[in-house]
Amino acid sequence: MKAVVKKEAGYGAELSEVAIPETGQDEVMIKVKSTSICGTDFHIYSWDDWAKENIVPPQIMGHEVAGEVVKIGARVTSVQVGDFVSAETHIPCGQCYQCQTGKQHICNDLKILGVHTDGVFADYAVLKEVVAWKNDPAIPATYASVQEPLGNAIDTILAGDVAGKNVLIVGAGPAGLLATGVARAFGATKIIVSEPNQYRRNIADAMGADLMVNPLAENLEEVVSDATGGVGVDFVAEMSGHPLALNQGLRSITAGGQMALLGLPTEKVLLDLSADVIFKGIKLIGITGREMFKTWHLAARLIKEKRLDLEPVITHQFPLEQFAKGMELMQNGNCGKILLIP
Amino acid sequence: MKAVVKKEAGYGAELSEVAIPETGQDEVMIKVKSTSICGTDFHIYSWDDWAKENIVPPQIMGHEVAGEVVKIGARVTSVQVGDFVSAETHIPCGQCYQCQTGKQHICNDLKILGVHTDGVFADYAVLKEVVAWKNDPAIPATYASVQEPLGNAIDTILAGDVAGKNVLIVGAGPAGLLATGVARAFGATKIIVSEPNQYRRNIADAMGADLMVNPLAENLEEVVSDATGGVGVDFVAEMSGHPLALNQGLRSITAGGQMALLGLPTEKVLLDLSADVIFKGIKLIGITGREMFKTWHLAARLIKEKRLDLEPVITHQFPLEQFAKGMELMQNGNCGKILLIP
Amino acid sequence: MKAVVKKEAGYGAELSEVAIPETGQDEVMIKVKSTSICGTDFHIYSWDDWAKENIVPPQIMGHEVAGEVVKIGARVTSVQVGDFVSAETHIPCGQCYQCQTGKQHICNDLKILGVHTDGVFADYAVLKEVVAWKNDPAIPATYASVQEPLGNAIDTILAGDVAGKNVLIVGAGPAGLLATGVARAFGATKIIVSEPNQYRRNIADAMGADLMVNPLAENLEEVVSDATGGVGVDFVAEMSGHPLALNQGLRSITAGGQMALLGLPTEKVLLDLSADVIFKGIKLIGITGREMFKTWHLAARLIKEKRLDLEPVITHQFPLEQFAKGMELMQNGNCGKILLIP
Amino acid sequence: MKAVVKKEAGYGAELSEVAIPETGQDEVMIKVKSTSICGTDFHIYSWDDWAKENIVPPQIMGHEVAGEVVKIGARVTSVQVGDFVSAETHIPCGQCYQCQTGKQHICNDLKILGVHTDGVFADYAVLKEVVAWKNDPAIPATYASVQEPLGNAIDTILAGDVAGKNVLIVGAGPAGLLATGVARAFGATKIIVSEPNQYRRNIADAMGADLMVNPLAENLEEVVSDATGGVGVDFVAEMSGHPLALNQGLRSITAGGQMALLGLPTEKVLLDLSADVIFKGIKLIGITGREMFKTWHLAARLIKEKRLDLEPVITHQFPLEQFAKGMELMQNGNCGKILLIP
Repeated sequence: MKAVVKKEAGYGAELSEVAIPETGQDEVMIKVKSTSICGTDFHIYSWDDWAKENIVPPQIMGHEVAGEVVKIGARVTSVQVGDFVSAETHIPCGQCYQCQTGKQHICNDLKILGVHTDGVFADYAVLKEVVAWKNDPAIPATYASVQEPLGNAIDTILAGDVAGKNVLIVGAGPAGLLATGVARAFGATKIIVSEPNQYRRNIADAMGADLMVNPLAENLEEVVSDATGGVGVDFVAEMSGHPLALNQGLRSITAGGQMALLGLPTEKVLLDLSADVIFKGIKLIGITGREMFKTWHLAARLIKEKRLDLEPVITHQFPLEQFAKGMELMQNGNCGKILLIP
Repeated sequence: MKAVVKKEAGYGAELSEVAIPETGQDEVMIKVKSTSICGTDFHIYSWDDWAKENIVPPQIMGHEVAGEVVKIGARVTSVQVGDFVSAETHIPCGQCYQCQTGKQHICNDLKILGVHTDGVFADYAVLKEVVAWKNDPAIPATYASVQEPLGNAIDTILAGDVAGKNVLIVGAGPAGLLATGVARAFGATKIIVSEPNQYRRNIADAMGADLMVNPLAENLEEVVSDATGGVGVDFVAEMSGHPLALNQGLRSITAGGQMALLGLPTEKVLLDLSADVIFKGIKLIGITGREMFKTWHLAARLIKEKRLDLEPVITHQFPLEQFAKGMELMQNGNCGKILLIP
Repeated sequence: MKAVVKKEAGYGAELSEVAIPETGQDEVMIKVKSTSICGTDFHIYSWDDWAKENIVPPQIMGHEVAGEVVKIGARVTSVQVGDFVSAETHIPCGQCYQCQTGKQHICNDLKILGVHTDGVFADYAVLKEVVAWKNDPAIPATYASVQEPLGNAIDTILAGDVAGKNVLIVGAGPAGLLATGVARAFGATKIIVSEPNQYRRNIADAMGADLMVNPLAENLEEVVSDATGGVGVDFVAEMSGHPLALNQGLRSITAGGQMALLGLPTEKVLLDLSADVIFKGIKLIGITGREMFKTWHLAARLIKEKRLDLEPVITHQFPLEQFAKGMELMQNGNCGKILLIP
Repeated sequence: MKAVVKKEAGYGAELSEVAIPETGQDEVMIKVKSTSICGTDFHIYSWDDWAKENIVPPQIMGHEVAGEVVKIGARVTSVQVGDFVSAETHIPCGQCYQCQTGKQHICNDLKILGVHTDGVFADYAVLKEVVAWKNDPAIPATYASVQEPLGNAIDTILAGDVAGKNVLIVGAGPAGLLATGVARAFGATKIIVSEPNQYRRNIADAMGADLMVNPLAENLEEVVSDATGGVGVDFVAEMSGHPLALNQGLRSITAGGQMALLGLPTEKVLLDLSADVIFKGIKLIGITGREMFKTWHLAARLIKEKRLDLEPVITHQFPLEQFAKGMELMQNGNCGKILLIP
């Protein structure tokens, strides 16, 4: 079969012909219908510091996926051949303290599809039964593979309990754009999006933002203050990982508010905890992965009941062979979510 | 001034000329711009058992109101002449355990405007400063007086944490219709409304319901089961107070779900607590009044940011003199919210 | 092996010699070290209406257990021969909406050990791996089998968020007595226990109750009012299932408080929802089973760190052969938790 | 009257004879029975950077107080002459977004007793009615003045929902020592206290800590790991404000856990947000002041019902005249809470 393979340490990846993988007793094999590129894939492709520490080539790339089950292992009971599934990408151990207390997504011995195992940018992929999510056939495959990052956005926005709240989204990459749509769907009354890239601000507009700010050209804190009658926002979704943006976001919150952190800073961040967190009674909430499988139910309902339109976020679709085009777009930032179709 | 006065024990009320009331040191007087009729007003008008126990005529009726401040008492500091205000109608004592712990709306020594005091169906009305809510001048007076019942609907729907949930609204009187709109605004993915009156089902449709059920003609539990893939709804908002409807709602919830109770049964209700509440791990949540003043902020934002359209719910508008027409409509049920304008 | 078998429809059970059961691929066999009698066992023994509907004889009785693993199935990975385990008794399907959203204990296709399957009043018992809980060897077997009902008590008390609260426990059977100890451990500042049986009131005293009330001799609501400065309790744990007691409990709560329902009424219950739930803004919370496995971690810690003394609750210990003595005590009520040791 | 007065910018304070202050219409005057020294008082006394920015001498020092009401203003209704009161020290404006939504303690226009106004280290003090808390006469005055910092400790520990949890307290100054006692009372199953000062570790022991660690002599993270079976603590209460200690605490939390921040860092703090907060799904919760007046009710109950023993924390008691001795002890750290009695 064809697969996008990270062959060796260094920039790039290759389209290769590889053997179709074995399906273990507690695994299912899917014929891949749609995949999508995550920021993590670009880290691996461009071989940054994080990739150097975490990836052992050669390995098939990719983890956002939807496909049809074509084979099941001997012990598999919850999925059948012919089922249309997506993959939860956090593979939990099932036995640690976190797994035993409803927090598999932050399992103490977590494996991640396409990071610690072969991935899904291929004609076929093998998934653990425990992470195979059965889709409603009414959901298009192109949307079905985007449910995984949509789940991150859902967990982020749920952390803010946004119904009737004023919300600031910091960073409008694909995660921030999905979060904008989710905040809109879940009842935020005012949504401000801070993002330097005009292309992405335009998509934020289409996803339901009320106000788009270029933080390099405008004073974000002043814009927020003006837009909220001097009060500040109730909730900030930090999707950028950028230290300056993160601190700007923090200073934009009203006393008693909350900030969810999904964007991953690449270095330590200096915070004025006394002034910006303690005296204001702020909560900072780290978000990683997606609550399993609560967020999948919510993602599926949002899509199926048309409470959230993914079209503006899905900006590009390429055949798998043209994965390099997708990676280039990821680099220059003039994109939302990019699909790769085998 | 003119006022709708409950003159004596018995059916009805009268439009009378009465003295303009005194404004106490911690009170404000408003010139009434808009009022609306609540179910409570109809209880008083029709002199039902509840009214007999709670009302001491003669008394000016009405409590949903918006108006302009024309006089303030000597100690008033938070409101000025010229301000455009609505009235929170639960007047808390400020000193009981509930008031001291953030629950003024269920104060242990609560007084209610238009129930324990003279009301607002009049040219002028006097409010305690503590319940005068300053409106944004951008909100029309006709909407501003509806914020009070909208607050009930908001508290009811917030109890269900409805983002991404399937929701059943039982009873589509004005409160149920407002709750339908709020559930839609706050991200419920599927909203089923059960209501025997066709006129009101049509308004529910306009407020964003996905499915309107006539429980006298259809089997509600089957409809809910079909609409939710056999799972049941996550949350029920019980707005009818009707024992049969309440029990139907309870049986429609999936295990682990919740039901908010706002509708007031007029008699004791028989519940199968073992089967319907305990084995299913259900929460029943009594809702009365509105959290002060959190719900007012949310109501104001929903209206101002146009996340909720009140037009379909406001079905009639009469001059104050024609209050009896409004009461007739309340009786036959072919109405949503009815405004009375002095 | 020897086992207590419900041989046929009707009162009683028999000690029988039966074959040691087979151990399936995803199961473990334990040599039973200690078991304890639950109210459910007495329902089955005395063959009440619930038993007639739910039990298909012949079947080995019992579900509260601790023992040593002596055999494991081929697919078992989390437990080893020699491990000291207890049994979570709610066997979840793993695939329904509840199981997928962290609520396995109210699984839509739940099987219960000793109710839907052969139980543990025997020399050996077979458990699904998924419900085998590994104990710390430091915990005595006699305590280890009591962790299961302790888990019910923990979930009940957690529902009340009792730190610094005044609490009423209605009914001091074993579940109520365990709840008394848990409420004490978790920081309730005043604990009132209502129970007609003097023997059990004495145990409640030993478990940390501040005030024991005989509701047949005293006016419970007055006692609660006096003990709380007229305010009422913040939380009621309803452990009796008795309609009168349940309603007394409900009327003893301060506005804004909560009541957890664990006791199972055998018939429908009449509630004054308007006066006792809605106007007071009360939450009623159905509790069944135990959150898996959060409550097991808490139960194990409470025992191991000696925050809770089980000695006063464990009133009797018999060899398995004398199970009938235990059942007699269950009937007359002069007991706490009764152990049966093979 | 006598009062401890911060006369001018610079180190120290003076015992002076000053006029008894006027009692405004919405104020009460108390005859001071007991006061206690807060870290804030020492900041003012030693004239550190924070004091330079926030204090305008001359001003009477002190804010932790209990006394008897000897005069009330014309509009005061909730307190009478002869009442025994303590002072909530955060004086809210009552009109901002925070005050209107149940968060007066983080009011947007907050005044603090003894910081923005004259304080309580004096024979008499004047309090706004809104912050006068009526004590149960059964509580000794020496305990009553300590309720204010006890409230901080309560809010901190409530943020961790500590029932059945393993808890780390970082820093055993008076706030950390009170938090230790509260964590014990509220059901923490294991309490580890990290504190370099032996004197204070001994008090932590008396307050219910299970394990006292000197972080300068031992590896705190290893101690925590060993004590929790490699899991880490569920909750950290950061009471030191020290950047290294704060980061040690953060790394000691298990994935999914929480950290409350009460200690005030004097400079910005560098955090590894990706590794320590985001990937682990941690919540950081800023705590300031005390929820009004929920925490006062809890503090009063803990003391009155003897769930918490303040004796070990109250290490010194001086006549007001000897305030300088108290300040010296604050500097060298060999103290818990120090009382000053007029």
